[in-house]
Amino acid sequence: MRSLLRELARGGGDARVIVGPGDDAAVVRAGRRPVVLTTDTLVEGTHFRAGWWSPAALGERAFRINASDVAAMGARPTFALLAIEAPGTTAVADLDALVRGFARAACRAGAVLVGGNLAAGPHLAVTVALLGTVSGRVATRAGARVGDGVYVTGALGASGAAVRARAAGRRVRMPAVPDRGAAGPRLAAVASAMIDVSDGLLQDLGHVCRASGVGAVIEAVRVPVAAACRRAQGAHAPLFAATSGEDYELLLTVPPRRAGALSRIAPQLGCRLTRIGTIVAGRPTVRLVDARGRTVPSPHGGFDHFRRG
Amino acid sequence: MRSLLRELARGGGDARVIVGPGDDAAVVRAGRRPVVLTTDTLVEGTHFRAGWWSPAALGERAFRINASDVAAMGARPTFALLAIEAPGTTAVADLDALVRGFARAACRAGAVLVGGNLAAGPHLAVTVALLGTVSGRVATRAGARVGDGVYVTGALGASGAAVRARAAGRRVRMPAVPDRGAAGPRLAAVASAMIDVSDGLLQDLGHVCRASGVGAVIEAVRVPVAAACRRAQGAHAPLFAATSGEDYELLLTVPPRRAGALSRIAPQLGCRLTRIGTIVAGRPTVRLVDARGRTVPSPHGGFDHFRRG
Repeated sequence: MRSLLRELARGGGDARVIVGPGDDAAVVRAGRRPVVLTTDTLVEGTHFRAGWWSPAALGERAFRINASDVAAMGARPTFALLAIEAPGTTAVADLDALVRGFARAACRAGAVLVGGNLAAGPHLAVTVALLGTVSGRVATRAGARVGDGVYVTGALGASGAAVRARAAGRRVRMPAVPDRGAAGPRLAAVASAMIDVSDGLLQDLGHVCRASGVGAVIEAVRVPVAAACRRAQGAHAPLFAATSGEDYELLLTVPPRRAGALSRIAPQLGCRLTRIGTIVAGRPTVRLVDARGRTVPSPHGGFDHFRRG
Repeated sequence: MRSLLRELARGGGDARVIVGPGDDAAVVRAGRRPVVLTTDTLVEGTHFRAGWWSPAALGERAFRINASDVAAMGARPTFALLAIEAPGTTAVADLDALVRGFARAACRAGAVLVGGNLAAGPHLAVTVALLGTVSGRVATRAGARVGDGVYVTGALGASGAAVRARAAGRRVRMPAVPDRGAAGPRLAAVASAMIDVSDGLLQDLGHVCRASGVGAVIEAVRVPVAAACRRAQGAHAPLFAATSGEDYELLLTVPPRRAGALSRIAPQLGCRLTRIGTIVAGRPTVRLVDARGRTVPSPHGGFDHFRRG
């Protein structure tokens, strides 16, 4: 679908569109400042199972995964629309809790829920449309250059480890989507490219490499691994953390000349920031290497499954 | 859900929100001109059955039902997001046709499809988020005053008659959603209140009456009935047309002092415009009357089933 959308956007060539389909969010001209637009759906049975989250936590999650796309563009969320599809048997209290959880998360992020729709359907699905505004630089996937450092916020692998534990029948707590709403615009000021880690670090860095026409080398030992992932995966933790999805951290590239500015920004991010590799010349692939520079074979390394369309 | 959204909006009191939840669309401050935001979902099995529309026609319909909400606010559509949920077995050609049908309808209306999402799910569901801009007056449901005339564009009942024929096993053509994109902003210049007819004339006028704190009297003989509805329903056609849904015509109230301006606008609308009744004082209910002024009993008259949330 992304390739079709890109094709349609090329055909259109609309002067109002600054960044068209194919990035974390679209950027359009709709006033003085550029407006960012994104949409994402959580479908029961596809993206989550019943009981993984309370209705309120699911509402919060639906907001945060869209806010993550907005943050990855360097924007701040402003207005949200919430479309819910639910079986007729769903308790009204559960729907109310979902909407309130969503609205609270929006409010904490400085955004407001302005509209919604409720439709009957065979299962629960939550589709969000989120607007944001950019007051500084827009970060896209397409600006990484050879020699840029590759950085990631927070730690990776907690979400994947929890999903795997659930699949094995253990009732572990599902981690919340981190709030990188403040970090996004700050990092966009120095980033040459940015994306959120939704499909997995190596896959999402692959998107950046293809959009920018560069390669990347990631040092496995530098990948920040979430504690729960390290406990569950042991020696496999770095590879697991680099390939499992839904961590919603920010992944960015920064030119060497802005490394100083980045160090000044880092303490204000409210989260860890780790340099994990470097942008290199060559084919747009991502190579994960061990401490001695040997390639770590990875099931996902640098390939795009288009599994999220 | 609308009542919950209204409650949340009241609690928020956000200065950026001009019109909050509970109208056809929200209106927010996001630049020089007010921006209109709306979302709506078409769910297979709830809003349509497989085979009612080709994928391209379904895409066009998904755009048009959202554009109808934008038109009812007096706005023009600008940017669209398209979130599709579909079974993994769906043919890629069908998804492509749906997206192209949507994009073509958007383009014809002066809008552009800027982003989307494709998620696996047990059935087909299409959720649209649509932005619009207002260059003139914003029309809400809340401005109708005693003595205002009640008007409707086009003709009613074709959609309901087709759904009924399909239910009876006849393969009639499903009518397309009319394009009232040009009429909406023109009518907003003179309307005291406006809404689109999605739930049925009497129900939707009931929404206007409650939001405005007025009543309404509609003359059954004046209700413009679609030819297909008249053929199928005979003597029952006016009541059927006044209570069946999904016609997506514009329903508006106009103060007597603007009747002259309305007659000058009418020839530019590209569709019929019919005066069907009058706003009256009293409880916020809608009374359908026959040629002798007697109340026509109606299963839906003036009551809101909240069946669309």
